[in-house]
Amino acid sequence: MKLLRYGAPGLEKPGLLDQNGTLRDLSGHVDDIAGDVLSDDGLEKLRAIDLASLPAVEGTPRLGPCVGRIGKFCCIGLNYSDHAAETGAAIPEHPILFMKANSAVVGPNDTVMMPRGSTSTDWECELGVVIGTTAKYVDKANALDHVAGYCVVNDVSERHFQNKLTGQWTKGKSCDTFGPTGPWLVTRDEVTDPQALGMYLDVNGKRMQTGNTATMIFTVAEIIEHLSALFTLHPGDVISTGTPPGVALGMKPQPIFLRKGDVMELGIDGLGVQRQDVGQDD
Amino acid sequence: MKLLRYGAPGLEKPGLLDQNGTLRDLSGHVDDIAGDVLSDDGLEKLRAIDLASLPAVEGTPRLGPCVGRIGKFCCIGLNYSDHAAETGAAIPEHPILFMKANSAVVGPNDTVMMPRGSTSTDWECELGVVIGTTAKYVDKANALDHVAGYCVVNDVSERHFQNKLTGQWTKGKSCDTFGPTGPWLVTRDEVTDPQALGMYLDVNGKRMQTGNTATMIFTVAEIIEHLSALFTLHPGDVISTGTPPGVALGMKPQPIFLRKGDVMELGIDGLGVQRQDVGQDD
Repeated sequence: MKLLRYGAPGLEKPGLLDQNGTLRDLSGHVDDIAGDVLSDDGLEKLRAIDLASLPAVEGTPRLGPCVGRIGKFCCIGLNYSDHAAETGAAIPEHPILFMKANSAVVGPNDTVMMPRGSTSTDWECELGVVIGTTAKYVDKANALDHVAGYCVVNDVSERHFQNKLTGQWTKGKSCDTFGPTGPWLVTRDEVTDPQALGMYLDVNGKRMQTGNTATMIFTVAEIIEHLSALFTLHPGDVISTGTPPGVALGMKPQPIFLRKGDVMELGIDGLGVQRQDVGQDD
Repeated sequence: MKLLRYGAPGLEKPGLLDQNGTLRDLSGHVDDIAGDVLSDDGLEKLRAIDLASLPAVEGTPRLGPCVGRIGKFCCIGLNYSDHAAETGAAIPEHPILFMKANSAVVGPNDTVMMPRGSTSTDWECELGVVIGTTAKYVDKANALDHVAGYCVVNDVSERHFQNKLTGQWTKGKSCDTFGPTGPWLVTRDEVTDPQALGMYLDVNGKRMQTGNTATMIFTVAEIIEHLSALFTLHPGDVISTGTPPGVALGMKPQPIFLRKGDVMELGIDGLGVQRQDVGQDD
């Protein structure tokens, strides 16, 4: 299933995209794409619905983040061997973890607003993993059983804030609108191998990132194993699993960061496409 | 007012502590100590209630975290000049920010459970600041207007996870139960000067930390100004503002970290006292 949330920010309704590409409303069945709805039982109930019985949604409403009530938004840094090479970083021994404030999460096509003083805002196309059932001290062999599904994330990053403000990376990762998530949550039964997904990101129509989840240093299962040894992963937590090569920070001889008016388009095989205009706070 | 939440984990009811030390139930007036209830208007409505009309709560129920539905839990590192000296760290140019997963937040007297593999769990008595109204690009001169109130936080920290797992600090700060918050939220009208509060922490009855918010490198107002330039602070967000000297990590010749069976007791002038037993996951 392709589960989604549509409507005005903060007022999104649950929905899904059917096999014909029609957006259908799920409000009669669940209150949100969140919490227990993401469990195996919750998803099974949705699967049992006759899709033709669901109201088709008129027009082309705004899409919100494909998960509601996100508890924590965990991000893995430098998780692609080819991206680590690009930035000159060593291959880490364990997954590098930082948090993106969940107040940064927006819909897949919402405008990304660079904050005041931003000079170095960058893009990062990433595979997002949505937790479906509570995970604590899980083994990688069983880790994927805890996944509800997958989605596209743009882990937008202000590099000056991230690296030069004597903070931790979260400073450059948590700005408002820096977490486009969606367009839909594709349930895990429809993702045969999360480690074989092609991905790309364009800026103003020019291909900047080309990658494949096959070059992840730590697989989705290994990441879940590691994080679940640190803390409990709850339904609705999201893990963004790192980005392949082609970010502005890696450009030679020097980075060309985002400018007001730029357009980012990004996608991952089978998970859909995002498109964001870039603005800047006055 | 001293606002609090009491009852079983996840099922807490709103309450307050009256001037006689009696715990009274607020369920008839608000659903939680969270969100809009924390605004100036929300707090004014609570102040207008005749306390004698509120049901007294029988017995001594468990206290939960004094804020519900915490959005993001921001933590400031190395924010006391005397603590920075203790750890040998340079005085930072800007507030150091990291995030504590909000899944780590527990009540003020709940057991702190060290995770499997923990060798270096440490304590940090901190002044917690609870945001009451939305703050974006605010000036330090007006920053405290956005504060609902203050509370005690124990920013429990696993130093090996924090510093040795090739992550960011959040790895050692986000373990389940590593965020005791409370016992109560003391509204800002009752805290004359947040930069003149004595604070302490004992382990097994021995005084380990003695400090005063007067030695903060960045004041509460300066921290809010800085963070609100990075992202929006929302009602119910919590900022833990750093710890004074006396943590295990700073001990000479070597740290003595927490052990199963230890007891932490900590308090801040006017904000109450926390007490946690220390356990360890099997």
